[in-house]
Amino acid sequence: MIADSISLILDKYNHEYHTEITKQSLWGKTVYDLLPEVHIPVIKNYQNSADFYHHVPLVEGAQDAVAILSEKYNIYIVSAALEFPNSLSARYHFIETHFPSISWRNLIFCANKSLIKAHFLIDDMVENLKDFGKSGFLFTAYHNVNIDYPSRLNNWEEILERFG
Amino acid sequence: MIADSISLILDKYNHEYHTEITKQSLWGKTVYDLLPEVHIPVIKNYQNSADFYHHVPLVEGAQDAVAILSEKYNIYIVSAALEFPNSLSARYHFIETHFPSISWRNLIFCANKSLIKAHFLIDDMVENLKDFGKSGFLFTAYHNVNIDYPSRLNNWEEILERFG
Repeated sequence: MIADSISLILDKYNHEYHTEITKQSLWGKTVYDLLPEVHIPVIKNYQNSADFYHHVPLVEGAQDAVAILSEKYNIYIVSAALEFPNSLSARYHFIETHFPSISWRNLIFCANKSLIKAHFLIDDMVENLKDFGKSGFLFTAYHNVNIDYPSRLNNWEEILERFG
Repeated sequence: MIADSISLILDKYNHEYHTEITKQSLWGKTVYDLLPEVHIPVIKNYQNSADFYHHVPLVEGAQDAVAILSEKYNIYIVSAALEFPNSLSARYHFIETHFPSISWRNLIFCANKSLIKAHFLIDDMVENLKDFGKSGFLFTAYHNVNIDYPSRLNNWEEILERFG
């Protein structure tokens, strides 16, 4: 997980609906579980806007860790973002700006990550890891904290310890 | 091959430079081989514009064949277009408009097609087929006509005969 999109989603939502939802309130659930169902399209519209990714903050430690690991591994960034087609160009530019070691040749947009041949996959969504067995690592995020998963990496520091 | 992007590239180039380059002149070579090297960025800019794919014509027979084959196969469209990030959204909408059986879950943007797990790959670029062995089929295009390839499909009619 390199982009802290949930922080920006909550900022925009709180601003628009005069709420004060914190990231902590997402403990064990996704933003889709938390918000009223009629507001799901609002959240999806944020993510599908052309400029959303120009404002998304980085996940702590991602930038340095990717730079370090790029010297040892051929790293691909696989984004399942095709549900949000208007955001693809900005997502590309987010990678280009913050992760200069990842060229366009190493960026993949693919909703079904099981289709990708890779030695390892680190992902915050359990369903993306289902075909990876022991090569799959769950990256801890608020929404997945209650899931019992055999190989979990809590942050980029732990990723560096495991793969560095 | 579903999008006849070369036709639109030549139209735009001929219009801009007052030339009369035909598709036939691409027999055995790519547009990058044919044009003066200083004009390569021009061609790449066409392809990287946000609206190029709103005007690209379809390859003959593609639309019907994909609709027919979708009833029998789980078809993915894999585009290597990440060199042209500003075009990604329009490429998505091209698929959405012309190939309604292909949802966003079945669209993949990936420069290196060897990374994709698939039973078959049909592609007009030999380098995209290199890891597919007998499961790879070369789709005939002007630029690849002189390449000796064991399994070639000349058009969508032949694809339907082989897989229908």
